Amino acid sequence: MTRAVIAIHGGAGALSRSTMSAAREQQYRQQLHDIVAAGQQILAAGGSALDAVTDAVRRLEACPLFNAGRGAVFTHQGTHELDASIMDGRTLQAGAVAGVSHIEHPILAARKVLEASPHVLLIGAGAEAFAVAQGLEPVAADFFSTPERLAQLLRVRDSNTTQLDHDAAATPLDEDRKLGTVGAVALDLHGNLAAATSTGGMTNKQAGRVGDSPLIGAGCYASNDSAAVSCTGTGEVFMRTLAAYDVAAQMKYAGRSLQQATASVIHDTIPELEGSGGLIAVDAQGNLALPFNSEGMYRGFAYVEGAVEVAIYRDS
Amino acid sequence: MTRAVIAIHGGAGALSRSTMSAAREQQYRQQLHDIVAAGQQILAAGGSALDAVTDAVRRLEACPLFNAGRGAVFTHQGTHELDASIMDGRTLQAGAVAGVSHIEHPILAARKVLEASPHVLLIGAGAEAFAVAQGLEPVAADFFSTPERLAQLLRVRDSNTTQLDHDAAATPLDEDRKLGTVGAVALDLHGNLAAATSTGGMTNKQAGRVGDSPLIGAGCYASNDSAAVSCTGTGEVFMRTLAAYDVAAQMKYAGRSLQQATASVIHDTIPELEGSGGLIAVDAQGNLALPFNSEGMYRGFAYVEGAVEVAIYRDS
Repeated sequence: MTRAVIAIHGGAGALSRSTMSAAREQQYRQQLHDIVAAGQQILAAGGSALDAVTDAVRRLEACPLFNAGRGAVFTHQGTHELDASIMDGRTLQAGAVAGVSHIEHPILAARKVLEASPHVLLIGAGAEAFAVAQGLEPVAADFFSTPERLAQLLRVRDSNTTQLDHDAAATPLDEDRKLGTVGAVALDLHGNLAAATSTGGMTNKQAGRVGDSPLIGAGCYASNDSAAVSCTGTGEVFMRTLAAYDVAAQMKYAGRSLQQATASVIHDTIPELEGSGGLIAVDAQGNLALPFNSEGMYRGFAYVEGAVEVAIYRDS
Repeated sequence: MTRAVIAIHGGAGALSRSTMSAAREQQYRQQLHDIVAAGQQILAAGGSALDAVTDAVRRLEACPLFNAGRGAVFTHQGTHELDASIMDGRTLQAGAVAGVSHIEHPILAARKVLEASPHVLLIGAGAEAFAVAQGLEPVAADFFSTPERLAQLLRVRDSNTTQLDHDAAATPLDEDRKLGTVGAVALDLHGNLAAATSTGGMTNKQAGRVGDSPLIGAGCYASNDSAAVSCTGTGEVFMRTLAAYDVAAQMKYAGRSLQQATASVIHDTIPELEGSGGLIAVDAQGNLALPFNSEGMYRGFAYVEGAVEVAIYRDS
C-alpha cells in the first residue's frame, strides 16, 4: 500500500517588511490550496505522479503571484528568460528547457523534451523551435509581463540593491528578496515518484544566466529508488552542491532517511556555502519533507485521503 | 606529501573500421603526450590544479583532432555550439558556458565565469557578451570549422545514420560514432583538486541541445573532499545519473574507493541506462582512475615525477 501524496512550493525567502492585508495573504493561501487540491484529484483518480507534478507546475506558472510563467521576473534587459525541468522517477527519464521567452508553459515544453526527444536539455531558440514543432503555441515576449514585476525590476535596477519597504508589493514574502521558483513532487498510487521545477529566474539577472531550476540533480530530481525533490533558493549554491541529487545520494549510499537527508542539505550543506532556500521532497513510502532555512516558503501538500495543508511561515 | 598528477581525455568511442596509417595514430598519441607534459610542468612548478586543467583543456580545444574548440563537430544546421565547464575542488566554485559560437576557447570563458561572475552557468549570447566584456576575443562563427568535420556532417546528415567505412576519416576511434568531449583532472602539490570539460557536442545534433559537458555534477565535478572527475559519453545518460557527482557521492557517503566508485558508475550505472563512454578521475591522495565501457578512449596522464603515459585502446 502506498501513501500517494503531492506537495508544491512557490518559492522561499525573507518575510516582507511591508504591511500586508489579510486579504492579500489569503490570496496566496487560496492559490496554494487550489493547486494542491487539483493534484490530489489527479492522484486519487489513479493518475501518474508525472501528470500530477506537470499539472501542478502548469497551474503555478499560470498564476501571476509566483515567479514562473506569467508573473515571471524581468532580466536586467527587461526581458523574460524562463527555465523548467521534470523527471520521472520510474524511468529516470528527464526533460528540461532553459532561456526560453516565447513558450507559455515552460514545464509543458520540458515534458515534451522528456517524452519526444532523445535529449534532456534544450536551450534558447532551439528549445522554442522544438516546443512549437511539438504543438505548443508560441506567445509574444511580453506575455509574461505584469505591472508588479516591472515595478520590481525598476526598483532593483535603479538602486542596484534590494529595497525592503515598498507599499506596491505587499506580499507575505519580500518579492525583492524572494528566491523565486515553483515546483511539485508526487508519489502516485502505483508507487511511482516524479518531480518538476519552473522559474522566471532572478530579478535584474544578467541575460543568459541559468540557475538550478532546469538542471537535473540541482533543482529537480526523482528516482523510485530514493526520492523526488524540487528545490528553490540561491540557485548557484544548489548547482555547486547538486542539492536535489544529494538528497537521493545520501539515502542510497549512507542509508539516511528522507528527513535526515533533506535536513542535511538545507541546514548544513547549503548554508556552508552561504546559500539559502528550501526544498520539497517525498520518498517511495510517502514520507514528506519540506525544509527551508529562509524565513518562509510558500508550500502545500495533501495525501490522497487527507486534508490539504498550506503554509507560508515557519509555523503556519 | 601529495602525489601531484594530471590526467586528460579526448573522448571515448568505438574503434574505427577504416584502415588507418601508423602515422595518423601517432599524431593522436603525440598530441596527448605533449598536452599531458605541459600540464605536468605546470604542476611541477607549483601551479594550481585549476591552472593545470584550464591549460590542458585550452590545448585540447586548440587541437583540431579533438571535438572541442577548433575541430568541433557541426550541428544539423551547419553551425557550431560549444560547451565547457570547470570546477575548483578547494572552494567548490564553478563556471560554465553552453551554446556559445563566437568564443575561441570556451574553457577560458568558463574560467572567467568561475572567477568574475556570481553565476555558475551562462548560455548563448549572454555568455558570449560576458566573455567579451571579460577580455576574451570574439571569433567568427566559422573559426571552428575544419574540412574533416564538414565532411562528417554531410555523411551523417545525408544518411541520417552513421557510416562505418570512409577513407577520409581514418582515425583510431570512429569519428562518426565517437562520443566527443575533452577534459582534464588534476591534483596539485598543495593538495587541491580541479576538473574541466569541453565539447563541440554531437555531430548533426539539434540546435539548442546541451549535453553533460557544461553541467556541474554531470560531466564535471571536483571537491577536495572526494575527487575530481571529467566525463565523456552519451551525454544524456551522464546527466540523468549525475555521473561525475555520483563518483564523489559514493566516496563520501558509501566510503568507496575512487576505483570502486568510478567502476560502479561506468560499468554498472551508465550501461543500465544504455549509455556508453568513460571518465577520468583523481582523488586527494593522487589515486587515478580512467575507466571506459566503449572500445577506446583517448587518454593520458603523468605524475609530477613520473613518465607521461598515453593510450587509446583498452590495452595500449
